Amino acid sequence: MKRISICFSFVFVSLSLAACNPSQEQGSSMADADQIDLIIMGDYVISMDGSSSVYKDGAVAIDEGLILAVGDAADISAEYSAAEILPGENRIVMPGLVNGHSHAAMTLLRGVADDLALMDWLNNYIFPAEVQFVDTEFVRIGTELACWEMIRGGTTTFVDMYYFPDTIAQVVDSCGMRAMISATVIDQRSPDAENAADSIRKGIGFIERWKNKNSRITPIFGPHANYTLNAEQLKATRAAAIEHDTSISIHMSESPFELQYSKDTFGMTSVELAESIGFFDGPTIAAHMVWPTEEEISILVERKVGVIHNPTSNMKIASGISPVAEMLQAGVRMGLGTDGAASNNDLDMWEEMRLAAFLQKVDRMDPVVMSAPTVLKMATSGGATAIGLGDTIGSIEVGKRADIIQVAFDDVHHVPTYDVISHLVYVTDEQDVASVVVDGKVLMKDRQLLTIDTKRVAEEAKAFATEIQTALYELNR
Amino acid sequence: MKRISICFSFVFVSLSLAACNPSQEQGSSMADADQIDLIIMGDYVISMDGSSSVYKDGAVAIDEGLILAVGDAADISAEYSAAEILPGENRIVMPGLVNGHSHAAMTLLRGVADDLALMDWLNNYIFPAEVQFVDTEFVRIGTELACWEMIRGGTTTFVDMYYFPDTIAQVVDSCGMRAMISATVIDQRSPDAENAADSIRKGIGFIERWKNKNSRITPIFGPHANYTLNAEQLKATRAAAIEHDTSISIHMSESPFELQYSKDTFGMTSVELAESIGFFDGPTIAAHMVWPTEEEISILVERKVGVIHNPTSNMKIASGISPVAEMLQAGVRMGLGTDGAASNNDLDMWEEMRLAAFLQKVDRMDPVVMSAPTVLKMATSGGATAIGLGDTIGSIEVGKRADIIQVAFDDVHHVPTYDVISHLVYVTDEQDVASVVVDGKVLMKDRQLLTIDTKRVAEEAKAFATEIQTALYELNR
Repeated sequence: MKRISICFSFVFVSLSLAACNPSQEQGSSMADADQIDLIIMGDYVISMDGSSSVYKDGAVAIDEGLILAVGDAADISAEYSAAEILPGENRIVMPGLVNGHSHAAMTLLRGVADDLALMDWLNNYIFPAEVQFVDTEFVRIGTELACWEMIRGGTTTFVDMYYFPDTIAQVVDSCGMRAMISATVIDQRSPDAENAADSIRKGIGFIERWKNKNSRITPIFGPHANYTLNAEQLKATRAAAIEHDTSISIHMSESPFELQYSKDTFGMTSVELAESIGFFDGPTIAAHMVWPTEEEISILVERKVGVIHNPTSNMKIASGISPVAEMLQAGVRMGLGTDGAASNNDLDMWEEMRLAAFLQKVDRMDPVVMSAPTVLKMATSGGATAIGLGDTIGSIEVGKRADIIQVAFDDVHHVPTYDVISHLVYVTDEQDVASVVVDGKVLMKDRQLLTIDTKRVAEEAKAFATEIQTALYELNR
Repeated sequence: MKRISICFSFVFVSLSLAACNPSQEQGSSMADADQIDLIIMGDYVISMDGSSSVYKDGAVAIDEGLILAVGDAADISAEYSAAEILPGENRIVMPGLVNGHSHAAMTLLRGVADDLALMDWLNNYIFPAEVQFVDTEFVRIGTELACWEMIRGGTTTFVDMYYFPDTIAQVVDSCGMRAMISATVIDQRSPDAENAADSIRKGIGFIERWKNKNSRITPIFGPHANYTLNAEQLKATRAAAIEHDTSISIHMSESPFELQYSKDTFGMTSVELAESIGFFDGPTIAAHMVWPTEEEISILVERKVGVIHNPTSNMKIASGISPVAEMLQAGVRMGLGTDGAASNNDLDMWEEMRLAAFLQKVDRMDPVVMSAPTVLKMATSGGATAIGLGDTIGSIEVGKRADIIQVAFDDVHHVPTYDVISHLVYVTDEQDVASVVVDGKVLMKDRQLLTIDTKRVAEEAKAFATEIQTALYELNR
């Protein structure tokens, strides 16, 4: 399947379909004025646009953060002269991955406590660590560590929910990723607020500060869940989101505990409650959604709720098996997420793709129920649509922002390769990602991070972890 | 937890507990006579012996393929002078992984057909490819490719079942791994035999040729399953195994299809049939075991059957969720395996560990049901016991053969590290393995394969795959 989709940039270029190697000669005085920022090449370019085009020996032309053209490498090379070229040998080019649900700073707590019952884990490890240690320094270091791991693994956009959102935004601003950052709303004393009203008030401040500051950063509200907020507080959060023209991310229908709590407290399920109080009157990103009924799935479709599936977290802390195949079949907008590293224990979207497919297959006893292209879509264009950025990112299409990765296919586990998409989903891991571009800027090139001082972050993270470990060991002696 | 377990080697060494850096001076003319082959060091040494000792700043002394001593690095360095030292900074030392069930040569078919119903997959892709292409050349290239991936990922022993076992044995002999290699017994025309009787006859020849040839290679019988062999043929295979004093590997209780076939054909389940015909009268490695009843689990315990759990394959081709927690609880000897790359699509034992834990947790809705140390044991000492090599390998203990790996903990996904074992299970992947030692010989050092010409193997594998792909596309047009 080959397709050519050339879009002329604002500068005149001569149309030539003859093959042509990008050479130094193109950098002549005449050509310099026409020079674009970047060309990314690949043995295959997987566009993930509606028609699922795969270009063999393809390339993408990028200027000022925008995708100008995608097509055959020979055509692109003939059309454009670029300041920088990422060569394509043994490289697959595809849209950057969209991590639809994370708690980035919690990467500082990865592996702090595993194989525990949920309440033991929360009450004796996570909550004490957060109460004692979560401040802007924790959030800065933890988020930098997470961005490092996410860029390294090919994630270009994430939807985060944690405390001190200004600090998260500063890190994202600096490292070059794209993010929707939730101001957490929770009705308890948290590291950055006293109660729900206080967290909404502070959230409004965050949203006003970041609303038009950086096109890569979208500040949103993050009401935690309906077991940490009452109906009035959920309504107040939605009202603030509508007033400030932004969206919301929330944990919804995650665990049997939540299911029971919601029925006991509100006389209905989480989705029914949200529908009944107008919580879905604005854009919503609902993480987990493990226990929706058929009726609730209809509500999710009608209200265009973006649902983020987190298979590793759902398996590891035993939340349950989400009816992903049914939701996709019904037309729910589905994305994938890693959740926090404290319940994962990494931020590997490739593993989320694999598990999304494997878990549905074995649960339904049907190897056909969830295919590699379906989960690749959830991790890219589908996820972008689920979080409300479908017009901006998620696929390699002319006019979209250039969030694009190169995956190296030179490792033994890619030998041989019969089907590129099945290899991306069933074999590829974080360490195969070679280069990462967000908004047209190269954040990682040939596995070298360019926007994060990884040595400093590793040292700071290790020092902080030593303090946390000492404190928790004292507590649980 | 620290423990010292020093065993004196056959040469006299002065006992000094003072810290001492291994230096060039130790290689003096006097010391040369006492020099041992190898010392492997690590920030942590995880022994996986009965007491689950973890040595901080530990080391292992190795000579003539045997583990001489394990303990604190300072003590080992003071005791021994070695011809080669693998330094321990940012390295975890642990037993090599035991892949209890594989079809190594099928790595040439990885990703050839995914997301298909079992019969479509078998009849339109796997069987036609095997009929047309499986010869000694296919098996040689595919097994070399698999050994490359397995060594790279830290697997030191595998239990294989495929055609042309002499070719498999030649590859294992040459690349330095340890393997139990099954002569496949199947009652149909296969690439290397006409029917069950012919495959048993040829299997006996293979076992006689390899029985005492190489201590790393154990030739065994591999009756395929009870839906490709009748009761008499299964009995005949066991009789041959007893006569030649060797063991058997078999697929057992894998799928609902097998369950139904066995009941329809034999009037009982696979395990009941095996028990009733004396099939368990010698050592048995039973792969998959997804559908055993409580009564069958009792039989598996009593008959000391080694059961190999293959979670990725069971999920991907929708075979079902094995009652691993119940089998462990009952005392079944449990190991882990990857199955063939055609249904996985890689040979990554780290992913098998993760999935073994995750799948039990979500299936039982209990995050405590399967812990990281439990699955690490299945992949090492437990797996070694399950395949009958528990006295020889599987743990770092004085007197055992030196099958040992170093895992690099310098990647971002290991920052921070609170618990080494939970990181090994929930985070580590194939690409983190730094060095691999089998039988005291270094097969990979700082990620460089030393016994396989990877460039040649990659070229041969890609060329072979191109032929296969062309043929299958013609067939399925």
